[in-house]
Amino acid sequence: MASFFPASLENLIDGFASLPGIGRKSAQRLAFYILSLPEGEAEAFARSVLEARERVHTCPVCQNLTEDELCPICSSPNRDRSVVCVVSEPRDVLSIERSREFKGLYHVLHGAISPMNRVGPDDLRIKELLTRVAGGEIREVIMATNPDAEGDATAMYISRLLKPLEIRVTRLGFGVPVGSNLEYADDATLLRALEGRREM
Amino acid sequence: MASFFPASLENLIDGFASLPGIGRKSAQRLAFYILSLPEGEAEAFARSVLEARERVHTCPVCQNLTEDELCPICSSPNRDRSVVCVVSEPRDVLSIERSREFKGLYHVLHGAISPMNRVGPDDLRIKELLTRVAGGEIREVIMATNPDAEGDATAMYISRLLKPLEIRVTRLGFGVPVGSNLEYADDATLLRALEGRREM
Repeated sequence: MASFFPASLENLIDGFASLPGIGRKSAQRLAFYILSLPEGEAEAFARSVLEARERVHTCPVCQNLTEDELCPICSSPNRDRSVVCVVSEPRDVLSIERSREFKGLYHVLHGAISPMNRVGPDDLRIKELLTRVAGGEIREVIMATNPDAEGDATAMYISRLLKPLEIRVTRLGFGVPVGSNLEYADDATLLRALEGRREM
Repeated sequence: MASFFPASLENLIDGFASLPGIGRKSAQRLAFYILSLPEGEAEAFARSVLEARERVHTCPVCQNLTEDELCPICSSPNRDRSVVCVVSEPRDVLSIERSREFKGLYHVLHGAISPMNRVGPDDLRIKELLTRVAGGEIREVIMATNPDAEGDATAMYISRLLKPLEIRVTRLGFGVPVGSNLEYADDATLLRALEGRREM
């Protein structure tokens, strides 16, 4: 009874089930939902899959996702080209942009070093970062990978490669989040907050 | 910053986020996954959406989903055409088939009466069931809607419509599940199990 539903429906269920975090039951629910959509909406969804694949590529400078030749940040005349903020994922660029503080450029690694998940330095866009820095325009690289074991290891690995190039390499400051409550801060964060204490 | 990602990627994220049970964050994760798929796989997924929509329709007799003119069960010469098992959803047919006990035909309502969700009798395939029964071949209708408030209400509603037609109308037996432990049976199930007790 493996193929109890019509073949094309089974195929659609298989498609959804192959996506990360979607189990068999959810895949069934999603497939039935697709069948229940009004004329045109399922077609629009399928088209959005194809168009995203067709149009989105990585920016040759910062490796962020873009539809243009260069991404909007790399092609903007208003950004400081001497500072580069290194992040793991395209969504991290969004987080940093929200702070409205950073005016430099980005470099997206597309992952973090993780021996557990078999992600090594060669799987990330590190070569491309070194090439950029070798260009000579960059004075500072801010490592803004996640404050977890993998992000820390990635930041450490890259900073060792960059140090000999005689540029400033910094790491995002860690500490208790603004507006939060000390009571709920975890030990590791408090430790980092104490280490990172400043004169007042 | 609503459209921070490239337009076609935002569009794909919107598409996933419009599916039931998928939030904004999951939609982002799924969209990035689609972009990371090897050549051809994203296309295959998009095609599976289109093909399922194109090929799958409801069987004109039992209303189950099928790609053929009649569904395999309705077109089988080995099924007892005098007994019809009424279920809410196509997946329920699969559950009953797994028991290998039932040899009759099905009727899929595509839902259950639920005033809360604004699903009334006219939203279900009840008319089609009455037409089938009026055909005269059917002797018994087994109501196999879910053993919950909505399923019970639906079974009750339909049985009232069928009774005047002088056929047997039965409801699936309720009780403690085989292989389960009494300790974990809920009160409502135990009540139904006592009501449905049999001589031994």
